[in-house]
Parts: sequence; C-alpha cells; structure tokens
Amino acid sequence: MKDDQMNDNSFNFELLSQDGDARAGIFHTPHGDIPTPIFAPVGTQATVKSLSQKHLIELDVKLVLANTYHLYLRPGDELIAKLGGLHKFMNWGGPILTDSGGFQVFSLSDIRDVDEDGVNFKSHIDGSSHRFTPESAIEIQERLGADIIMAFDECTQPYDHTYNLQAMHRTHRWAERCLQAKSRKDQALFGIVQGGIFPDLRAQSAAYIASLDFTGNAIGGLSVGETKQEMHAMIEVVNAILPEGKPRYLMGVGTPQDLVECVKRGVDVFDCVLPTRLARHNAAMTESGRMNMMNAQYAQDERPISYSCTCYTCQTHSRAYIRHLIKAGELLSGTLLSIHNIHTLLNLARQMRQAIFEGQFNEFTSFYLSNFNNQ
Amino acid sequence: MKDDQMNDNSFNFELLSQDGDARAGIFHTPHGDIPTPIFAPVGTQATVKSLSQKHLIELDVKLVLANTYHLYLRPGDELIAKLGGLHKFMNWGGPILTDSGGFQVFSLSDIRDVDEDGVNFKSHIDGSSHRFTPESAIEIQERLGADIIMAFDECTQPYDHTYNLQAMHRTHRWAERCLQAKSRKDQALFGIVQGGIFPDLRAQSAAYIASLDFTGNAIGGLSVGETKQEMHAMIEVVNAILPEGKPRYLMGVGTPQDLVECVKRGVDVFDCVLPTRLARHNAAMTESGRMNMMNAQYAQDERPISYSCTCYTCQTHSRAYIRHLIKAGELLSGTLLSIHNIHTLLNLARQMRQAIFEGQFNEFTSFYLSNFNNQ
Repeated sequence: MKDDQMNDNSFNFELLSQDGDARAGIFHTPHGDIPTPIFAPVGTQATVKSLSQKHLIELDVKLVLANTYHLYLRPGDELIAKLGGLHKFMNWGGPILTDSGGFQVFSLSDIRDVDEDGVNFKSHIDGSSHRFTPESAIEIQERLGADIIMAFDECTQPYDHTYNLQAMHRTHRWAERCLQAKSRKDQALFGIVQGGIFPDLRAQSAAYIASLDFTGNAIGGLSVGETKQEMHAMIEVVNAILPEGKPRYLMGVGTPQDLVECVKRGVDVFDCVLPTRLARHNAAMTESGRMNMMNAQYAQDERPISYSCTCYTCQTHSRAYIRHLIKAGELLSGTLLSIHNIHTLLNLARQMRQAIFEGQFNEFTSFYLSNFNNQ
Repeated sequence: MKDDQMNDNSFNFELLSQDGDARAGIFHTPHGDIPTPIFAPVGTQATVKSLSQKHLIELDVKLVLANTYHLYLRPGDELIAKLGGLHKFMNWGGPILTDSGGFQVFSLSDIRDVDEDGVNFKSHIDGSSHRFTPESAIEIQERLGADIIMAFDECTQPYDHTYNLQAMHRTHRWAERCLQAKSRKDQALFGIVQGGIFPDLRAQSAAYIASLDFTGNAIGGLSVGETKQEMHAMIEVVNAILPEGKPRYLMGVGTPQDLVECVKRGVDVFDCVLPTRLARHNAAMTESGRMNMMNAQYAQDERPISYSCTCYTCQTHSRAYIRHLIKAGELLSGTLLSIHNIHTLLNLARQMRQAIFEGQFNEFTSFYLSNFNNQ
C-alpha cells in the first residue's frame, strides 16, 4: 500500500473485552494486527539481541521496538530510509514501534543540554555532538518508517516536583510540535504522559495528552527508580483519564509481575529489554520466579527450565546443557534464554488476554502471582 | 537399539561412485547416514558456536564434530555419560564424531610431557594437571558416546624427520592400544595416519594404520603450517595406500579450495572450525572468495552476500544489514555468517558428490576454482 493511500484510520483500535480495568483488544496496523495486552521485545539496533527474525516469527512476536537514538547514530536514519525503511532493512514484516530518542538522550548521554527548542547531546559511541528537537525526532522516525512512532519528551528523575512540573509542560509543548511536524499518514503517533511520581502532575499531563489528536497514548517516566506502589498509583491516576478508545502503552516495563499488575490497571502494550538482558546474564524468567541457570544445582538437572513451558528451549534442552553453555562461555546460552524469556512474557500476555475474555482475570492473575517466589 | 545388539557392522561404508580419485559414498551410522564427501561443522563444547541445533537441522548438517579434550575438562565426560551421552546432552539426533583429544593436548596446553604410556598436560582453563593415555582417551570417548571416535595420536610439528619418525611409531603403538581398549560396539573407531611432511613416513604410517582393524582411517597432522603443495603430496601418498572400502577423513581442513583439492585426491570427510571462526571475524565464505562484511563498501549494499546462495542468511538479509550488525556489535552477525559459511561448505560437498556421480568432477571443480579470487 502506498503512503498516500493510507492514513491514521489504518490504526483502528478495537476494545473487545474488559474485566475490571483490564482490557483485551486489537490494534490494527499496516503491517499486521496487534492483539492486546501485548509485550514487545526490544530490538535496540534493529535486531532483538541474539535472535534471528525467524526466531521472532516462531515466538509469534506481534510488535518489535527499535530505538531511534541508536539507529540515528548507527547506521543512520538516512541510510535506513535509502534501503527502504526499517521493515525492509531488518527484514521484519510485522509491526514496529520506534521510541523518540528522548529516553536515551537523557539516560545514555553524559552531557546534554535542554532548552525550549530541543536537546543537545553527545553520542555514547564517539562523543560527537548532536541535537534532537521534536521536529527532528519525528523526521528521523518518519525516515525509519515504523508503524508506531512516539512524541519527543523530556525524561526526568521522578522525585523533584518543581523540575517535573517544568519538564511536563515542556513535554506538552513538544507533543504539539510533534503532531504539527508529522507528515506521513502510514504511521501512528503516540503521545507520552509524564509527571514523575506526583499524582497532580500525572493527572494534569494525562488530561493534556488525552486532549491532543494522538492515535495512542503512552505512560513514560516510570520504572526509573520509583517503588512499585508509586508506579501502580501513577498508572491508576493516568488510566482513569486517558480515553478508553485508544491503546495505552507503558514504556520500558516488564517483569511478569509488572505485566500482571499493570494490565490489571488498564495498560495494553509493554516493552522492555529485561527478557534479553536477563538472558545475557544467565537468568530464566519462569512462572515461579527467576532462575540463575549458572547455579551448581543445575549441573546434572535433566529437566527443562520449566515443564509447563512450550518454547523451543524448554522443548529441546535441559537445565544441565544450558548451564554447561554458560560455564563454557557459549553464545547459544543467550539465544536459548532469550527465546525462553520472551516466550514467557508473550505467553503471559496471551493468557491474560484469554482470561479477560473469559471474565477470569482476577482468578488467573491471583493464581499466577501466588506461584512467584522472588521475581 | 541397545549396545549389545550392535556392532561395527552398523558402520557400513558404501563406495557408490568414483571419478578419477574422487569418491562418492554413504557411511551408515546408528544415528543416520552420512553421504560423502561431507563437511562436518565443529561443536567444540557440544555446541556449534552461535547456532542452535535447529539451525543445524535446517542446514542439513549430517555430521557434527565435538572435542574430547574440551568436554573432558568441562562439563566432564562422566557428567555427560550420566545425562545419557553426547547425543542426548546436546539434543542432536544425527551422527557425532569426537576427536581423541590428542591434537588439543599438543596445541592448547602449554605444558605437556609425553612418555611411552601417555601425555601429562595442564588444562587451558584452570592450569590443573591431567593425563591422557590411549586407554583413557577411548574410555572418555566411550562415555561421551559419539558414533565415530578417534585413536589417540601424537601430533607433531611437521618439519622434523627424526621427531616425526619417533612420534609416528608411538602413534602406531598407541593405535593398537586404542583398538584393544575399545569396548563399546555401537561406536566406530578410526585410526590416524601421521608422518609430518615426509613421504616415506606417510607411506609407512598409512600402510601400518591400514593393516589394523579400524572402521575408517584419518589423516592427521596436516593444515598445521605446511604448504598446500606439501599437504596435497601427503594426501596422495596416503590415499594410494589406504583401503578403498573404508572412509577417509582429513582432520581439521577446510577452505572451499581445500575441499575441492582433497576430494580430488580421494578424501571423504572433513571438519574445520573455519566457517564459524571466520563468521566471528566478520568474514563470509563465498563461491568467489572471502568477503570482509565490515568493509565500508557494503554499507548501502542491498544485495545478499551471494545471489546464488540458498541459505537462510542470503534469502533473508542484505549485506548492509549484516555490516550494520557487525558495526553495532550485535551477536546476530555471527549467527548469520555461521549459517552462510557452513552452508557454503555443505553445498560445495553436495555439488562435488553430484558431479562425481555424473562423471563431471573435473569440469565442476575447474569451473568452481576459476571463480575464486583470494580465499
């Protein structure tokens, strides 16, 4: 489909069922339907670390996140545009979401300088100087060509009310500039609610972002050091205000408990590096907690990571083999654990969706959480 | 099938066709048939580096090599035996070959001490002291449980006639001890011809090893620093003596040219770390030479590594994407290049086999070699 034949109507969100505040729906995109609730694995540099795109298909991944900051720096958004955009560049036919670069500018770059117009920052790769503005962040994301793109926001530490108030207002002004700057009709732009851990700011931000013409809404600035109670409270404040008819995306969150607690509070979409990062640190996410697969107790353990898991790793390999790969420094351990961990979160999302349709969300999640030890 | 129901008759070698000295056959093993000529990728530590066993199946790998030295040290042959043997441990249902540990003892261990009975050496992992004898090398390989196991030999530098003469005689005495020590009937034991780059020693060694009751014969001590001409000359001397009715395995060789030149001289089986090692060093093996995929010339190159290649990598990804993965330090580049490189050697072996059946071996290989630039 050509760009000029498409518009934001391609991005219809159908809310199919609710159980309490938990929601099940479908977000239609030009590259496929995304059933919600959904977890999106992160392909920071146009690759989900240690996995091939075939692995993603076999895992039934429905949405991949890629990072604008990283791809702008390397290989460059202009190169990716020249090669046909991100879908073609990484040969991933399904939906893609790019963040705006805001979070990375504020978290990865040691030296950055915010003004009303934008942010100067230095590359974490070579120290070279760069500048993002709301307009350039949209322009870069239009070159990358993801299905879902994000407004450029100012990410803050969560505990300073004065600074969060200022940053929130700037994020709001930037949100309007992002909407103005958007030119492609085959991409959906999501706004981002900020406001730290302050209910008054979160409510104000949610109302303001909800008033703008975004296709979906995101909650930013959480899972950055606040407590779980604070995170849950902010989500409750925000989701009571955000419109029901648009998808709600909680950025950068993912443990299994987080998915349960936040779907319960009305979140539809999640992304997080956790499953692949834990995999590279030898940890398996399971229904009964996190397992350090390097532990000596697994040296002769012929069982799979989890008997109830249907992923390739659990259907194929023993704990003893995975531990051997880790001890021997073999890359396959990261691949096998990434497959397992992503499957765990995708499967949890699928189970929650089914439970919502069946009106059994609380029963399912209570049982699920009761199995957890330590995760 | 139980061990006591099996014997070396399970390992029938059928020589199906010859074209000049090039041979096409089938080596039957309890875990499947190996069509020859064949290339075996190396899974040093019970994993072919950066690939899953599913990748190996998709590549139609027919034989995997694993290293006795490494597996003895980590996780230990007794642990692997307890977990059901190497096939079950790594969940690879096809044929496996283990080397005897001899090559690693002589090449990886800084401190080693050879006597008539065996070799003392220190672990490259932790410096701990160990000893291999012909008997223990067989015992360890019987615990590992590969289909094809190798006699324990003394590996030398190729240019000292006096030392090679001594080492060859010791290798012969050890070969007889390995045959004596062998107890499992569901494994085939191959002998190893040594003799450096000296035709007289190679002829003497080939005649001696051929006189013993091995199921197959290997040529060791090549591709260790000698010239191609010397390597080819040694193979010609040895293969003129080794029996036609048993498979001939050239250890540790493979470039595409090596496969062509050595199949031409009557070799049936190859193994080498080259395709996976090159992959980790960003190099693609192709029909027209080696490509360094990090080169700037590929930055915007939308073509696959090779248009004529049918591997997953070439069917899925561009040179530009692979170069991006390399520049970004992403592990997927090693996986994609390993898939491509192993496919290149397996496909070359399949093409040579077909050419032998068709009586077109010289035509095929002349054409193949004429395309090469630099490999």
